Amino acid sequence: MPEPLIPSTGLGVLHLFCTVTPQADRSAIETAVKAAADDDLQIVPVATLGHKSDIAFMALGKDLWRLRAFQTAIVAAGLELVDSYVSLTELSEYAGGLPEAMAQARLYPQLPPEGMTAWCFYPMSKRRDPGQNWFALPFDERKALMHEHGTSGRKFAGRIIQLITGSTGVDDYEWGVTLFAQKPDDLKEVVYTMRFDTASTEYAEFGPFVTGAVGTLDDVLDAVGITGTPMRDR
Amino acid sequence: MPEPLIPSTGLGVLHLFCTVTPQADRSAIETAVKAAADDDLQIVPVATLGHKSDIAFMALGKDLWRLRAFQTAIVAAGLELVDSYVSLTELSEYAGGLPEAMAQARLYPQLPPEGMTAWCFYPMSKRRDPGQNWFALPFDERKALMHEHGTSGRKFAGRIIQLITGSTGVDDYEWGVTLFAQKPDDLKEVVYTMRFDTASTEYAEFGPFVTGAVGTLDDVLDAVGITGTPMRDR
Amino acid sequence: MPEPLIPSTGLGVLHLFCTVTPQADRSAIETAVKAAADDDLQIVPVATLGHKSDIAFMALGKDLWRLRAFQTAIVAAGLELVDSYVSLTELSEYAGGLPEAMAQARLYPQLPPEGMTAWCFYPMSKRRDPGQNWFALPFDERKALMHEHGTSGRKFAGRIIQLITGSTGVDDYEWGVTLFAQKPDDLKEVVYTMRFDTASTEYAEFGPFVTGAVGTLDDVLDAVGITGTPMRDR
Amino acid sequence: MPEPLIPSTGLGVLHLFCTVTPQADRSAIETAVKAAADDDLQIVPVATLGHKSDIAFMALGKDLWRLRAFQTAIVAAGLELVDSYVSLTELSEYAGGLPEAMAQARLYPQLPPEGMTAWCFYPMSKRRDPGQNWFALPFDERKALMHEHGTSGRKFAGRIIQLITGSTGVDDYEWGVTLFAQKPDDLKEVVYTMRFDTASTEYAEFGPFVTGAVGTLDDVLDAVGITGTPMRDR
Amino acid sequence: MPEPLIPSTGLGVLHLFCTVTPQADRSAIETAVKAAADDDLQIVPVATLGHKSDIAFMALGKDLWRLRAFQTAIVAAGLELVDSYVSLTELSEYAGGLPEAMAQARLYPQLPPEGMTAWCFYPMSKRRDPGQNWFALPFDERKALMHEHGTSGRKFAGRIIQLITGSTGVDDYEWGVTLFAQKPDDLKEVVYTMRFDTASTEYAEFGPFVTGAVGTLDDVLDAVGITGTPMRDR
Repeated sequence: MPEPLIPSTGLGVLHLFCTVTPQADRSAIETAVKAAADDDLQIVPVATLGHKSDIAFMALGKDLWRLRAFQTAIVAAGLELVDSYVSLTELSEYAGGLPEAMAQARLYPQLPPEGMTAWCFYPMSKRRDPGQNWFALPFDERKALMHEHGTSGRKFAGRIIQLITGSTGVDDYEWGVTLFAQKPDDLKEVVYTMRFDTASTEYAEFGPFVTGAVGTLDDVLDAVGITGTPMRDR
Repeated sequence: MPEPLIPSTGLGVLHLFCTVTPQADRSAIETAVKAAADDDLQIVPVATLGHKSDIAFMALGKDLWRLRAFQTAIVAAGLELVDSYVSLTELSEYAGGLPEAMAQARLYPQLPPEGMTAWCFYPMSKRRDPGQNWFALPFDERKALMHEHGTSGRKFAGRIIQLITGSTGVDDYEWGVTLFAQKPDDLKEVVYTMRFDTASTEYAEFGPFVTGAVGTLDDVLDAVGITGTPMRDR
Repeated sequence: MPEPLIPSTGLGVLHLFCTVTPQADRSAIETAVKAAADDDLQIVPVATLGHKSDIAFMALGKDLWRLRAFQTAIVAAGLELVDSYVSLTELSEYAGGLPEAMAQARLYPQLPPEGMTAWCFYPMSKRRDPGQNWFALPFDERKALMHEHGTSGRKFAGRIIQLITGSTGVDDYEWGVTLFAQKPDDLKEVVYTMRFDTASTEYAEFGPFVTGAVGTLDDVLDAVGITGTPMRDR
Repeated sequence: MPEPLIPSTGLGVLHLFCTVTPQADRSAIETAVKAAADDDLQIVPVATLGHKSDIAFMALGKDLWRLRAFQTAIVAAGLELVDSYVSLTELSEYAGGLPEAMAQARLYPQLPPEGMTAWCFYPMSKRRDPGQNWFALPFDERKALMHEHGTSGRKFAGRIIQLITGSTGVDDYEWGVTLFAQKPDDLKEVVYTMRFDTASTEYAEFGPFVTGAVGTLDDVLDAVGITGTPMRDR
Repeated sequence: MPEPLIPSTGLGVLHLFCTVTPQADRSAIETAVKAAADDDLQIVPVATLGHKSDIAFMALGKDLWRLRAFQTAIVAAGLELVDSYVSLTELSEYAGGLPEAMAQARLYPQLPPEGMTAWCFYPMSKRRDPGQNWFALPFDERKALMHEHGTSGRKFAGRIIQLITGSTGVDDYEWGVTLFAQKPDDLKEVVYTMRFDTASTEYAEFGPFVTGAVGTLDDVLDAVGITGTPMRDR
């Protein structure tokens, strides 16, 4: 492997959305996930719903070369990579004064949160249109709007864990949003509720949404029909 | 199967749009539908028109893992999943004071309605643009506009049954709309008529529309050319 | 076949855009078209130009199940269905007072018109944007604009036959427009001329355009390279 | 072949963008091009750059059935048709008083111009938006803007030859623009310069751009890797 | 090879985005890259992240036919070309008075810069909308805005090297932007920071972003799983 390519703080995050092909090899997927974990990557497997994909892997790690190697391994294992999102963990510019523990949790999150198996991902940007130009607002106004937005989100504390990662310059939207919830309707309720916050009502532009169920790798491979002797039974 | 993933109220709804492949196995499709029904899923098969798909299955059930298993089973049976929509049944925020029986019918609908075999599905959102920003309207104004819209729709009572399911946060639009009608031109007339309601004229953004004919599974499989010995003749 | 699914007035219309595959079977296509005609469907074959498709079939008939069966048959005959449009013949809401014979010609057209082999199809909608919101105009203003538009179109009488079918609620645009012309440049001239009518200048939103040459089924199959013994020579 | 389908003046123009498949048959492509030339079609082959296509053929001729036959022949020769544009040569409505020789050159161009092997194609339309509605302008204002635009273009005389063909009603944009230049940067300079003309700055909507190198058929087939014994060496 | 097709100043630039197929032939890729380098092309290989591609090659050279030959060679070597961007090096119109050495570095860059292995590419245009019309601004205002934008970018000197190439008239956007950085989060920080410059806030329209890691050809082929005996070990 070449010299590691590592962000100065935080982690690289790769959301990989895959469909199952007839060549899908359960054992090879298990090996790829285990090898990644052994190299300190966090891998969250999700059984996604609908035609967009069958499995999503959320992969977090320091070295972009190592993340790329995980991508290579799961494709070699017979999954077809049909969508993805590239981002980096970050501290928001509005997060000044955050306690160190919370800052660390944003830069180096421990995923998945326990007992929260409803999952969705969507990318988003802020608009730069006449009358709805987020980037033309002064910092204090943006900070106040984000504070209102955060207050709105905190009403879902305990039911929702969100991870917002930055992707300006590295993928098509400015942020990636990953939500973990206790119940599927929590996902709907939190996003619907927050859509009435000015930061969303006037300024948010949303990309495609993918929804699924977080499980163990065994659960997820079973759910999407990748047979073979599961690792647990060997 | 892992721990069920169930909304706190209502049902998960999966619209699955499939094309027929040479591997389509009538018997395996029938088995998948029967197994789902045995597990308390409602499955509505539709023969759709045009290139977008051949068959749509509308699947409703409590557990997202079980819905995912149905998706896995029909793909394993040789259907190609080319489009889909993920949503949840819900009570609209404007539905306060709805009699309990009607509320139950929205959260736990019994489908398909009898004698209504013309069918269409489309997703929709409300605009958030300058001059046409639904989410910036006060609740009372939104409620009044939805009341007008509902009044307009009720003129089609008996000819049209609609099911509106919520998808903010779980799929690309904010709602999915499924219409069942007696005649194909009812579908056209109701949607055209309602487009003149302010809620649509100024605020609605529509996704793609798919149209078809609801039938028994045998009718639908026959119509799209999936041969084999039908279950009814075995 | 299940209980017919028939509009209360008029016909279902299916524009099917196909590409040729190596499996295309001339004889099976001929059989599908003949069987449809025997069941009172009108089928207009068109050799289309460019990558969008090779053959278009415009199919008109009462029963949506029978139209679906025609679609199934041509795909089984080795054509790949790559695009389509679903609509219904209709009387425009601005057509009040139309003589009965003309009304019948719109609801039950006889196609193709003789000697008009230049052909195009495009779907269209009316805009609902601030400053260009067709659906917010009063009926009389819309009627006057449509009258102006019709006057503009009638200058092409004899050179152009148009069929406008309704698709609100059943496909992605609100109308489908099919033009038959004597010469290819008639298609261009009529659409370009009418773009200066306020109904188009301010309010029209156009979908993709497909152009081709109407012919006998033999002409069209020859033109797109589907060989085999043509029906005429057996 | 059926009755020719010929515009009342000018030529049909088919831009065909192809990728090479493993079945590409050099000899069959050469035969298709020669047969077309023998039937008075002009065929301009271009080796295009990037993923959009490998070869473009610009085909000009009177009869749409004959143009369609050329399309059928090159696909049968193993090229995959991945994009296209359908248009017709025309005299602009602002070209009143053009000397007959120049009018003829626009309706019946002789292509390719000598020594101009840098090539690009793009389709374009004029906007119909509030504040930028070309079709709402009076004729004289449009004519003045087109005159300014033409003056700007004529500064590139000798370095650039342009062919503007009409496609309103026959393809997705209103015009197709084909540029031939001496140098690749001429293409960039002329389009960039003209973007500051009001006709473009306020009113133009551009489609995708494809760029390539015009050559002999042998040059082009060599460049894109279609081997076999070239016609020149047989 | 035909007569070279060379810009009057500067270089042609081809960004080629490829996925790996089962036919990928390491040795043939190495040969293609070496042959290009022997003909004075610069080839920068990048292992890209996510589904958009596996490998990007940035190819710079004088002759468009030679760039096309490189494209043909890597496709023949079993890479699938799934995206690309065509542009030309250029001196910005706002770069008057640039020292000759800097002008040469822009027209004839030496890539990749040492020690900068984080990489991204995106195309961009300037808006021509009411209230946000870059091309309607006077030159001096545009120059001042670009000066502000440049000042903002220069704060990243040493951490970021950017190459802006012109593509008006030759590809779908007006410019291509290639960034090389020391750290992945530098890419994010520079693009996010500059989004607050008026030139971006009000006028920029961004295309898709691709991100990857620059390496030796061996590093990159290893990372994306193209096996075979690497050139270094033969």
